[in-house]
Amino acid sequence: MSVTAPQGFRAAGVAAGIKSGGARDLAIVINDGPSCAAAGVFTRNRVKAAPVLWSAQVLSGGRVRAVVLNSGGANACTGPLGFQDTHATAEKTAEVLGGSAPGIGAAEIAVCSTGLIGERLPMDALLAGVDMAAAQLSRDGGLAAADAIRTTDTVSKISFRRGDGGYMVGGMAKGAGMLAPALATMLCVITTDADVSAEDLDVVLRDATAVTFDRLDTDGCMSTNDTVLLLASGASGVRPDLAELGKVVTAVCADLARQLLVDAEGATKAIAIEVVGAASEHDAVTVGRAVARSNLLKCAIHGEDPNWGRVVSAVGTTDAAFEPERLNVAINGIWICRGGAAGDDRSKADLRPRDVTITVDLSAGSHSATVHTTDLTAAYVHENSAYSS
Amino acid sequence: MSVTAPQGFRAAGVAAGIKSGGARDLAIVINDGPSCAAAGVFTRNRVKAAPVLWSAQVLSGGRVRAVVLNSGGANACTGPLGFQDTHATAEKTAEVLGGSAPGIGAAEIAVCSTGLIGERLPMDALLAGVDMAAAQLSRDGGLAAADAIRTTDTVSKISFRRGDGGYMVGGMAKGAGMLAPALATMLCVITTDADVSAEDLDVVLRDATAVTFDRLDTDGCMSTNDTVLLLASGASGVRPDLAELGKVVTAVCADLARQLLVDAEGATKAIAIEVVGAASEHDAVTVGRAVARSNLLKCAIHGEDPNWGRVVSAVGTTDAAFEPERLNVAINGIWICRGGAAGDDRSKADLRPRDVTITVDLSAGSHSATVHTTDLTAAYVHENSAYSS
Repeated sequence: MSVTAPQGFRAAGVAAGIKSGGARDLAIVINDGPSCAAAGVFTRNRVKAAPVLWSAQVLSGGRVRAVVLNSGGANACTGPLGFQDTHATAEKTAEVLGGSAPGIGAAEIAVCSTGLIGERLPMDALLAGVDMAAAQLSRDGGLAAADAIRTTDTVSKISFRRGDGGYMVGGMAKGAGMLAPALATMLCVITTDADVSAEDLDVVLRDATAVTFDRLDTDGCMSTNDTVLLLASGASGVRPDLAELGKVVTAVCADLARQLLVDAEGATKAIAIEVVGAASEHDAVTVGRAVARSNLLKCAIHGEDPNWGRVVSAVGTTDAAFEPERLNVAINGIWICRGGAAGDDRSKADLRPRDVTITVDLSAGSHSATVHTTDLTAAYVHENSAYSS
Repeated sequence: MSVTAPQGFRAAGVAAGIKSGGARDLAIVINDGPSCAAAGVFTRNRVKAAPVLWSAQVLSGGRVRAVVLNSGGANACTGPLGFQDTHATAEKTAEVLGGSAPGIGAAEIAVCSTGLIGERLPMDALLAGVDMAAAQLSRDGGLAAADAIRTTDTVSKISFRRGDGGYMVGGMAKGAGMLAPALATMLCVITTDADVSAEDLDVVLRDATAVTFDRLDTDGCMSTNDTVLLLASGASGVRPDLAELGKVVTAVCADLARQLLVDAEGATKAIAIEVVGAASEHDAVTVGRAVARSNLLKCAIHGEDPNWGRVVSAVGTTDAAFEPERLNVAINGIWICRGGAAGDDRSKADLRPRDVTITVDLSAGSHSATVHTTDLTAAYVHENSAYSS
């Protein structure tokens, strides 16, 4: 299912030999139309990988006929030669897809890469993989494609939803570390067979990512390669109400974001920082992110220690509107901090479940937002001490 | 030596029973004059502990006769009753010191606390400890005082330097976790027997902390209790050149900051992020801090992996002036990233020594700054998973 749940899409995932070990590492998703409207959002990191620079140009035209994605190398910080590699990947993909997709050009092909920063991709293997993947494109290829984009992800992440009138939205994503504000080291392709213009897709995608992937912050580290694409084939013939489409796309993004969170490197807890009583949504997100980034708090939750002092001290580092003596904090529903001081018995806060909700009431207004993070564990340290070597 | 290296100061450190386990947990430092000029800098966290609120008021008068410090409890997020506890501590200290320091008042007594946030201090034990410490004040008490302010610090941190003309500067500090921008969970008392006005001390102290403690960022977490005090007795009779005094005080702060860094919780590496070629000093500090806060980089250095991609991606999250294709990064002197791409052979970067220098050349100007951090280790996670429980 995944990206091939909607009509009009084929996909494939193959082992091209980019990764050592023989796992799948190259995927193609093709939009057979009739429409090829598309939108994309990209990392806000100022150091952008070659495929991000390339794909942002492609998306500026609002048309994407195919996406080629690889794991095993980010193609970031690889200079002009790295950009040429991305260009060559798109040219090659256009060439081999030309048979089944007449008139397809490299400028309609988005490229995504993920893996280690700073090394050139093994282009011989990659280009041969494009041939292989193109030959295997099928309506059943969504799962193999989702598998091929994994790096340290332990499982594939896929999702799909049916919209009013019968159109479908499907998606796949990868990302396990470097999950941070502007989208994390995550790649995500969402497809729909609804008939929607590129302009409308852009609005829908920006709104959806703003409240899902943008509120996932597992380790505060923003990647060079984050890319979320939304492709519409129009094959269902349904022209959805945009608000309704927005809800469905947001649900798919939220589902994928949740899967990323649960599979985050080394995590044993999924922590929701729910900020309420904020003077603005911006304040709520700012506070949520500050708490989500506190290593000390993340360690405490790992140790199942309801150390609310670490929540309050993180709140205090922000410029959000609040008065220290009106702060309330609940952990899993127990208001252990009231009025900026100790509240209910902290021993009542049960931190044994995997899901932990930390509620911060700023007592400064009526806005709210939730930011998601994970605990900080020795396993995270271990995994990230050994990643590139 | 420590705070009693300069003439005119006595100190003591005793076990008052605030901490469980019988270790020293209460210290007093008294300035016997003739001057009692003083300056202080405090945490920029908006959630300030009661002793910070109290001491900031005391310091606004530019006079400090004594400082009473406790470990075993931060007295932060303890509401109006916590503030009353701090007030009572100052009153009690004034009362018992009145014999040897005629006319001393609570409003001339700074209070510092460190330990767990959100719990009231055991005031019976603390006030009895003030009696005990007052009885033990001596010219040899600097080491015991430095010992009494430790929390998870494995060693006491002390320093002293002689200035031109024979005056002395001495200091003690504590702080092992929550070391971050505006000063960290650190308490520091610096003394001098130079004769300097409160206004001049303020300038000297702000300049010194800005380039020392303020550039220490071990875990990005800013404390509610940070306090750095500078007290002058004038007992040497020397009126130093202010620039020269500034150098000596900065040297003492730098020495103490280095000791904090080396003793940071769980750390196995002392990492200097040296940013050069910046358009402004502010840009250099911003970039240094962003790199110092990258959990992924800190894990990589722990694993002795010269993963410069994590440096560059952290630089990319800032708004400093730079062009990605002109970034250069050296690790321990090997320029493994040149022009934003792979440079010299990364295997030449030897990360086995405890001291690691990461040089980031922004190629955007002539300003520079160095921010100090540590690696992120399983031991840090372990220590901070179990701190309050």
